[in-house]
Amino acid sequence: MFDKITIIGCGLIGSSLLRIIDKKNLSKQINVFDKSKEVSEFIKNNFKVKVFNDVADSVSGSDLVIISSPLSSYKEILLSIKSTLKKDVILTDTGSAKKEINKIINNFNLDQVHWISSHPIAGTEFSGPESGFAELFKDRWCILSSENQKKTQKFNLLKKFWEALGSKVKFMSFDDHDYVLSITSHLPHAIAYSIIRTVIKNEDKFKEEIIQYSASGLRDFTRIAASDPTMWRDIFIDNDENIIKILDNFSENLEEIKKAIKSKNKDKLNSIFSSTRKLRKEIIKAGQETDKPNFGRK
Amino acid sequence: MFDKITIIGCGLIGSSLLRIIDKKNLSKQINVFDKSKEVSEFIKNNFKVKVFNDVADSVSGSDLVIISSPLSSYKEILLSIKSTLKKDVILTDTGSAKKEINKIINNFNLDQVHWISSHPIAGTEFSGPESGFAELFKDRWCILSSENQKKTQKFNLLKKFWEALGSKVKFMSFDDHDYVLSITSHLPHAIAYSIIRTVIKNEDKFKEEIIQYSASGLRDFTRIAASDPTMWRDIFIDNDENIIKILDNFSENLEEIKKAIKSKNKDKLNSIFSSTRKLRKEIIKAGQETDKPNFGRK
Repeated sequence: MFDKITIIGCGLIGSSLLRIIDKKNLSKQINVFDKSKEVSEFIKNNFKVKVFNDVADSVSGSDLVIISSPLSSYKEILLSIKSTLKKDVILTDTGSAKKEINKIINNFNLDQVHWISSHPIAGTEFSGPESGFAELFKDRWCILSSENQKKTQKFNLLKKFWEALGSKVKFMSFDDHDYVLSITSHLPHAIAYSIIRTVIKNEDKFKEEIIQYSASGLRDFTRIAASDPTMWRDIFIDNDENIIKILDNFSENLEEIKKAIKSKNKDKLNSIFSSTRKLRKEIIKAGQETDKPNFGRK
Repeated sequence: MFDKITIIGCGLIGSSLLRIIDKKNLSKQINVFDKSKEVSEFIKNNFKVKVFNDVADSVSGSDLVIISSPLSSYKEILLSIKSTLKKDVILTDTGSAKKEINKIINNFNLDQVHWISSHPIAGTEFSGPESGFAELFKDRWCILSSENQKKTQKFNLLKKFWEALGSKVKFMSFDDHDYVLSITSHLPHAIAYSIIRTVIKNEDKFKEEIIQYSASGLRDFTRIAASDPTMWRDIFIDNDENIIKILDNFSENLEEIKKAIKSKNKDKLNSIFSSTRKLRKEIIKAGQETDKPNFGRK
């Protein structure tokens, strides 16, 4: 499909890309750059790919360049690679927030570079190259966004690339992407981090009991609160406006529940708690969640 | 172990008790009462037990009476059964809040009744007798609480009963129970209900996308927000003081995160997001959670 692909940033996502591109023979050559020496060593020791010490060199001659490092690293990476990018290269990423990144890239006025962003809705609570696996993108959605390239040949090529990894591809504008993901992803992460912080601060003399009885609800929230801190810091800073707005909405809804509890308003609580079952059924019906009790955990 | 056990309320928990008591032959006879005709029919059609139309009759001659109906039903049940309870009966329940219930039962001044409350930390997001299964209590904690019966013969008998179901038993005071569970269970449920409410209200024109991309975090929260509404309404009203206090703490922590996002305070966000990984590791180490990525979901 490609002669040369470069992956910049080789953690959970980047190394999963590497594994599946290699497995499916989607590129004659794979170049990798990661600023961490440990990650570079791990990749060298486990895969037959070219690992570069210089990010500018790593993109030279590549037909597809994928940035899968934290959002805050993009600017420096682009400064380094802009003069070594091949003519007509597809430049993409795997970041979870798009609008600000798109502005940054547009400001570079990159000539003859096809910038089309990707967001694979795939991941786990683990990070680092040892956590990656080739099946990560299988049957998952991947959202592509671009300013005006929706129907270009390059757009279709990138779409086919993700489909070859097993993903289902959708197009969204940068703005719509950031709004929808602030609801489906950024809001739940902010809340999960807050709840675990609350618990940690209240651990006091019952620490052992809190861990023992975590199966009564708490453990569900610890999963996404265990996600990569740098990645999430950058997402919150990047998509701050949408996230603050949706967190304000959330706080209003929480106040409504608090008020109903304080006034022991049975009817109100009933109506609140009855309204929320439906969404899970719809998510299960859409094939986005298991229908097994307790996520099918043993 | 017992000559006769009565189960009052035969939903997810009650019917799971019925299944395992039957399977392990822990009682010569099992009596069941449920105020719902549908539930009673289901039990009659699927199990060889005595199903009663009158709750007072159902407890007559029983050595162990287990209330596994919503907390708000206890008072009426106790009014009905207090004169038909056998001398030296063990009266227990499976409710998720204890302090108020204990007050109610104490106010009845039941003579020669051994009231020892149980809370099996076990359940799923499903409800009703068709959702029950015999293994529900296996390897789960069960918390026993009583005023002064910790070392009595009846206490030990009830402990052995839960152990025979496969559970690990701990003793806690009513107050401590309600405090710890407000953190491990009631807080996460209140938050999950609030988050799903927020999402439902924001569904607007992106409803399809929100469901499609729910795997990016949201789906985790829909599980416990799909729990039984009546049961949860009663828990929030019963344990209101602890819950309001911990929700206030939560709101403070959320405001701290919001402030850090608004001021784009990288260091603060880093420190918040780095502090929360540890708790999950401890929960996994304690055998209360799977170590597989994404809860091992397919």
